[in-house]
Amino acid sequence: MKQLSASVITIGSEILYGHILDTNSRFIGSLLSEMGIQVVLKSSVGDDRDDILSILAYAEKVSSLIFITGGLGPTNDDITKKCLSEYLRSPLKMNLRALEEVSAYFKKRGMPFTEINQKQAELPETAHVITNEMGTAPGMWLERNGQVFISMPGVPHEMHHMLQNKVIPKIKEKYQTPIILHKLIMTAGIGESWLAEKIAGWEKELPVHISLAYLPGYGQVKLRLTGTGDDRSRLQAEIDERILQLRQIIPEYIYGEDGLTLQERIGQMLRQRGETLSTAESCTGGYVSHLITTVPGSSDYFMGGVVAYHNAIKTDRLGISVQTLEKYGAVSEETVIEMAEGCRRDFNTDYALSTSGIAGPSGGTPEKPVGTVWMAVADRSGTITRKFNIPKDRINTIKYSSTAVMILLWQRIFQKNGTDA
Amino acid sequence: MKQLSASVITIGSEILYGHILDTNSRFIGSLLSEMGIQVVLKSSVGDDRDDILSILAYAEKVSSLIFITGGLGPTNDDITKKCLSEYLRSPLKMNLRALEEVSAYFKKRGMPFTEINQKQAELPETAHVITNEMGTAPGMWLERNGQVFISMPGVPHEMHHMLQNKVIPKIKEKYQTPIILHKLIMTAGIGESWLAEKIAGWEKELPVHISLAYLPGYGQVKLRLTGTGDDRSRLQAEIDERILQLRQIIPEYIYGEDGLTLQERIGQMLRQRGETLSTAESCTGGYVSHLITTVPGSSDYFMGGVVAYHNAIKTDRLGISVQTLEKYGAVSEETVIEMAEGCRRDFNTDYALSTSGIAGPSGGTPEKPVGTVWMAVADRSGTITRKFNIPKDRINTIKYSSTAVMILLWQRIFQKNGTDA
Repeated sequence: MKQLSASVITIGSEILYGHILDTNSRFIGSLLSEMGIQVVLKSSVGDDRDDILSILAYAEKVSSLIFITGGLGPTNDDITKKCLSEYLRSPLKMNLRALEEVSAYFKKRGMPFTEINQKQAELPETAHVITNEMGTAPGMWLERNGQVFISMPGVPHEMHHMLQNKVIPKIKEKYQTPIILHKLIMTAGIGESWLAEKIAGWEKELPVHISLAYLPGYGQVKLRLTGTGDDRSRLQAEIDERILQLRQIIPEYIYGEDGLTLQERIGQMLRQRGETLSTAESCTGGYVSHLITTVPGSSDYFMGGVVAYHNAIKTDRLGISVQTLEKYGAVSEETVIEMAEGCRRDFNTDYALSTSGIAGPSGGTPEKPVGTVWMAVADRSGTITRKFNIPKDRINTIKYSSTAVMILLWQRIFQKNGTDA
Repeated sequence: MKQLSASVITIGSEILYGHILDTNSRFIGSLLSEMGIQVVLKSSVGDDRDDILSILAYAEKVSSLIFITGGLGPTNDDITKKCLSEYLRSPLKMNLRALEEVSAYFKKRGMPFTEINQKQAELPETAHVITNEMGTAPGMWLERNGQVFISMPGVPHEMHHMLQNKVIPKIKEKYQTPIILHKLIMTAGIGESWLAEKIAGWEKELPVHISLAYLPGYGQVKLRLTGTGDDRSRLQAEIDERILQLRQIIPEYIYGEDGLTLQERIGQMLRQRGETLSTAESCTGGYVSHLITTVPGSSDYFMGGVVAYHNAIKTDRLGISVQTLEKYGAVSEETVIEMAEGCRRDFNTDYALSTSGIAGPSGGTPEKPVGTVWMAVADRSGTITRKFNIPKDRINTIKYSSTAVMILLWQRIFQKNGTDA
């Protein structure tokens, strides 16, 4: 089977000038690779007719699927549609289906539908509309001589939704793609190099058609197994067998599979047990409760939290004693214990977690440098704590310590149950 | 003066597969733009001879400077050097200067200098060595018919150092570069198409050497002015003059310039006035307080907040009356008013904001569908509210409504002051 090849073209002068980082082409490349489609080219060009026409011609020479993002907005600098119309000799016409969808989008939101918005429904006459459920600019699917041009909006969340829900199903319908299976195993609480040492023997035994990649992130490492073959069910069985072996080697570090997040795993475990959670955050500033509430249905087990940024809030709203704060300071084991226990009591939950640290860039001392973070998890049987030194910039300190306290919570729930299978 | 044009080619299959995010081309694009060199193309191709030769030919057609990163390592999949040698018909030879530099690099670090490392000093014979002070792969400067090929390593910190300290000085020596100035104007509280209508007259009057672009994001639109000229101070004055005009047309929508975030602007205003803020979040789950605390020094004006996810927390921790919740529901104007006012009282702050909505995917009703969000801002003179219908997925509803309530707060502070200049 001949492998399908694809090009990804992102349009927008702001990408060339470096004003924005092009994450769209990575997203598209990643999804296409998983489907066994070979991306041979990524290109960005500005909002310029000649440059767009020229790169379209080049992409058409090297690939059979051409993905284009950006330049679909209603303003004058958005010229992707005009260029595709010219390139494919398919004149712009009012597309009734697009008009209906765009006007419905405005109507639903009670927004006035102006002339400039109507123009968004003018498409090359051979274009098939790809519905944009997240915005106003319709996507387009255009074919010529067996090659396909797929034009999507540049706004990342609109493009992501359109690609996953509309474009990829259409590609799978049209083409037979080879069998490539990916499986992610989610680990937490162990660094990449230690993990690699622990599983070196297992890794060495993998057959050639199953490869392993380490994908490190915030305090977590994803292991990706990629298998290639002709027989889907046999390949699936082989991969499952390897994962079973892996789970026996490092049971205490695996919390899930296939992109499950720590907050989702924590939610599953709490729901299973009918238990509840609250949060008392200082340095993480609400980021932990944000992560927890990204999970649909989290209101079933997450009662709420306090962001106690100022010390007065720590005493007034969490009942931490002024003596503790004065004697040990806000960034101390004693304080995070009182925060977690006070929060658990006030919010009447089974678990409560807390964080207090110095996110920087200022506020550090020789004893407590920037990046020092204390965290605690309280439950009915007591309170456990951990200290981290995370010498990152402010944002990364917030994100690392948020993950770290969730790992502590997950380990606590896991230990009590004795299994996380 | 004819403007210099440039292409940026990043080489590496891992970029195409989406395994790594290409930040090199952004870095190069950003520095070149600042020098007035117009980047007309960014492209990524894999470690494949044909693909590399083909994109080199394309880049040579559209630009006079061709920047290449990646593929200079000592292993077999690194073929950039071979391809450049073939493309420019300049055979690989041991380059004595490169050999000296590479061996010195190894010697300095007490590392053994192996045969494979020696091969790193073999360069096309017409190449001028660009010293790599951060690593072992030498950079190359190659000229042919007035066009320049600049090959740099793919490791970001090696490339950054080489570009800034070796390549850019050499370009400035060789070419007289024109002046390009960029200016971002940050707007909030108005959609792209309405904004475009409001400033259509102003946009039409812009001279040809100053162009405008709309860069939309979450509930905000950045306007980018790009001016080209020979006289820096005159160009700067022209752009400043246009921005002054713009500020008179839409003073209520401009909150800052040059990438300032809403949370930074709010922080500046609160600090200036010596005022404080607290937050009472339901559907946004802590994301607003997270955004506010990403700003260094936010502890000066942000006291803290409550994430009142469960209704019991709304009554127990924010003092909302059970009657209000029963009569109007948690997602109602009455509830967000009590949330904001209760929070302002309990946290003893000048301002308090609140959010309550249905982030979905479940929990919607015909009267209050998923995406319905109520928000309020309370201060000493009263409480203002706003309702949004944001039919996005869960994450985007959280992010959009977080931005929306910050816009409401900014507008409130702004109105009281009467100016935001």
